[in-house]
Amino acid sequence: MTVKIYGSTKAVCPQRVMHCLFELDVDFQLVPVDLEAGQHKSPPHLAIQPFGKIPYVQDGDFGIYESRAIVRYFAEKYAERNPGLLGRTPEQRALVDQWLYVDAINYDPHVFPIVFNLLILPRMGLPPNPAPAMESAKRLEEVLDIYEAQLSKTKYLAGDEFTLADLTHIPATRFVLEEAGMVSLLEGRENLKAWWVDITSRPAWKKVMQLLRN
Amino acid sequence: MTVKIYGSTKAVCPQRVMHCLFELDVDFQLVPVDLEAGQHKSPPHLAIQPFGKIPYVQDGDFGIYESRAIVRYFAEKYAERNPGLLGRTPEQRALVDQWLYVDAINYDPHVFPIVFNLLILPRMGLPPNPAPAMESAKRLEEVLDIYEAQLSKTKYLAGDEFTLADLTHIPATRFVLEEAGMVSLLEGRENLKAWWVDITSRPAWKKVMQLLRN
Ligand SMILES: N[C@@H](CCC(=O)N[C@@H](CS)C(=O)NCC(=O)O)C(=O)O
Ligand SMILES: N[C@@H](CCC(=O)N[C@@H](CS)C(=O)NCC(=O)O)C(=O)O
Repeated sequence: MTVKIYGSTKAVCPQRVMHCLFELDVDFQLVPVDLEAGQHKSPPHLAIQPFGKIPYVQDGDFGIYESRAIVRYFAEKYAERNPGLLGRTPEQRALVDQWLYVDAINYDPHVFPIVFNLLILPRMGLPPNPAPAMESAKRLEEVLDIYEAQLSKTKYLAGDEFTLADLTHIPATRFVLEEAGMVSLLEGRENLKAWWVDITSRPAWKKVMQLLRN
Repeated sequence: MTVKIYGSTKAVCPQRVMHCLFELDVDFQLVPVDLEAGQHKSPPHLAIQPFGKIPYVQDGDFGIYESRAIVRYFAEKYAERNPGLLGRTPEQRALVDQWLYVDAINYDPHVFPIVFNLLILPRMGLPPNPAPAMESAKRLEEVLDIYEAQLSKTKYLAGDEFTLADLTHIPATRFVLEEAGMVSLLEGRENLKAWWVDITSRPAWKKVMQLLRN
């Protein structure tokens, strides 16, 4: 049975899952959830994702949410197709986990106010609100300095191989750099810049961008 | 070599790791990091935990931070000692992961403002600031309603067995219910209350409380 992703190609969290499924060559079907129409807060959606968010994923009769848990589930299920994604040793796997939590706890929370105040407000017909976006961008810069230091020691966040920890960062980072026009965040952070060019040139990520443009 | 936990028995994030190591019967040594003295922002600590937080854990020559990644690492390493902690099937493991992320993303962020504004400010000699604490308590109540619904279907968050997903919730919840005096959050949420009584009666958690009192 084809995997079903309840979500939208435009939203960062479902993009993480789609990217991972392309890396693993797993077919999926998108079940559209229209955020602008508020479908994610409707009773049928709340019955499967009680926090009223996307994505929710259905794999046969197994249902799960939380994008980072979802990508770990599939990377484990199809481990032989791309064994590096999870980390190859117990220690590498633990560092992949560590950076997935860093993404969720130390990175993402600074990205959301940028996206919301500069991009979502105008989409809702309201004026953008740059002040809190700039405040979050400052916090994000401190985090990017830590990433730059890590990426000066290892090619990818959790070691010298591309893993889920790099993958989950891509969609939100693209919003900030490309849609919110903050590509200057890469300036003076040469390792971060090289990492960004590398991870976004992966064919699986390009397929996500292709879906976005359709 | 004994596992070293850089942290403090008083702080919630190291408590998660200590609880897990007691569940697995793994010896550890606490390397005290004095938060009040700002030791977590000192260069030697930033060299091992670049975000300036505790805990950081050293297991032989392997070092790792992020409490939820740490407990997963040890539960995997000593899986035969307590195989239920991680989940027993791929699907259960994925649901444990899901709830660990829910803890980090949807639960913890509402707890911190309560603890900070009611408990940490007074410890710093400043007046408490109840308004933002009450605002977060309201958000937390919405989340607790979702937990109550889950716990009416399964005995524990990720199924009918105690797992890491329950474990990581304990320390922060104890702060809110016991130290911030919000035990009334359990009222009218009977499954949540039974879960709380059950998970805090575990011998391994009682050992953490013992350390706290020493
Ligand atoms: N931690 C969740 C976050 C899910 C999330 O915030 N999804 C966004 C789209 S990327 C959403 O549903 N936003 C709508 C809302 O919050 O109302 C995950 O990683 O799956
Ligand atoms: N996500 C981290 C959070 C670590 C964290 O916030 N630790 C707290 C103590 S529980 C801390 O170091 N606080 C001091 C500070 O933030 O300055 C983890 O789970 O390990």
